[in-house]
Amino acid sequence: MYHDETVRIYERLLEQKQSFSGGTQFSIGGLSINVESKDGIGGLIEEWFGAWCHDQGFKITNPKRLGSSQEFPDYYVGDDNGMLEIKAFDRDAGPNFDIANFESYCASLAVKPDRLNSDYIIFGYRLKGSILSISDIWLKKIWEITTSSERYPLKTQVKRDVIYNIRPASWYSERSRRPFSNSDEFVNAVYETQKQYRSLASSPDEEAFWRNR
Amino acid sequence: MYHDETVRIYERLLEQKQSFSGGTQFSIGGLSINVESKDGIGGLIEEWFGAWCHDQGFKITNPKRLGSSQEFPDYYVGDDNGMLEIKAFDRDAGPNFDIANFESYCASLAVKPDRLNSDYIIFGYRLKGSILSISDIWLKKIWEITTSSERYPLKTQVKRDVIYNIRPASWYSERSRRPFSNSDEFVNAVYETQKQYRSLASSPDEEAFWRNR
Repeated sequence: MYHDETVRIYERLLEQKQSFSGGTQFSIGGLSINVESKDGIGGLIEEWFGAWCHDQGFKITNPKRLGSSQEFPDYYVGDDNGMLEIKAFDRDAGPNFDIANFESYCASLAVKPDRLNSDYIIFGYRLKGSILSISDIWLKKIWEITTSSERYPLKTQVKRDVIYNIRPASWYSERSRRPFSNSDEFVNAVYETQKQYRSLASSPDEEAFWRNR
Repeated sequence: MYHDETVRIYERLLEQKQSFSGGTQFSIGGLSINVESKDGIGGLIEEWFGAWCHDQGFKITNPKRLGSSQEFPDYYVGDDNGMLEIKAFDRDAGPNFDIANFESYCASLAVKPDRLNSDYIIFGYRLKGSILSISDIWLKKIWEITTSSERYPLKTQVKRDVIYNIRPASWYSERSRRPFSNSDEFVNAVYETQKQYRSLASSPDEEAFWRNR
């Protein structure tokens, strides 16, 4: 089910996981600091992952580096361009990354349904002072890291009644809402969420409200 | 008008500005990358600034380090705790940082009006590949970096009719909307924006809309 080369990358990562500690050093004008903030670590791990793959002899390409403005995927793997997304979260907190913008995901799924087949490599990190370590690495499909919620069939980030992003389940925790069992369940949840959300967004009351502004 | 010690910090920064180049190095498992992404640079510069001040013998404290959950200010300066905020933006783009959450700022101004007196030190950086340089440094008050907009008397970030953050003017550009001339103009703009926004938010139509959901 996962892309062959991505599976090999994942297995190599697991082999080396014990050695995966490090951190961020930031310098200006000869003064260096060892960074203790978690801001931006996800992006740094994504960039590092590309360099690590090249160093290890895996063939991956970064679409953004090829001058494309494409936001998805983070990397293409192998000669047949398997899609790979890289995510990271603080293992001492919980997964809070954005899987995708909800509207963009819905729109892109319609024109590019094979986006569903994208693999996700997810890093769980810990930061003690400025020392970063990787405690967990997962290889997943999107329906294995998403779930339902009380509000909508798909767990999303909702602010003031606007859906922003698709948000992850705590897939590794037995005490949390279970992820979907297969891609169909996930797609149905996307569809049902969109239906509920859109019918809400075009209720007669809201129509009237917008017209009168 | 600016805090005395902050003025000395600012002057020292200007003296050293020519030497202010550097960058971010991120390592895991012995593999280092020179980071080319702009994500998170603002936070790194803020953290670096604190270390630089200590290195230079200036007395500043970081309220967040003292265990407080306080989000404002970034630093206290001198024995009398002058308030200092640190901001940074890509000089090749334009100032796009959040000055403050609009609602929080309105609420805090009412209970802590001396927040108006806070100084802002703002770094304009450039990133060429992974090489970071500081091309400009400004010392400002909030009314010198804020302005009006077409939509509201105060320039803010508005998404789907919700005001999120107070956003900066391009104060250094003659071709842009001029910043306010004094603190009164700024406070009036905050007040008028809040008035327009709230009356909008409690219009009979919207009341009805919310009641009927």
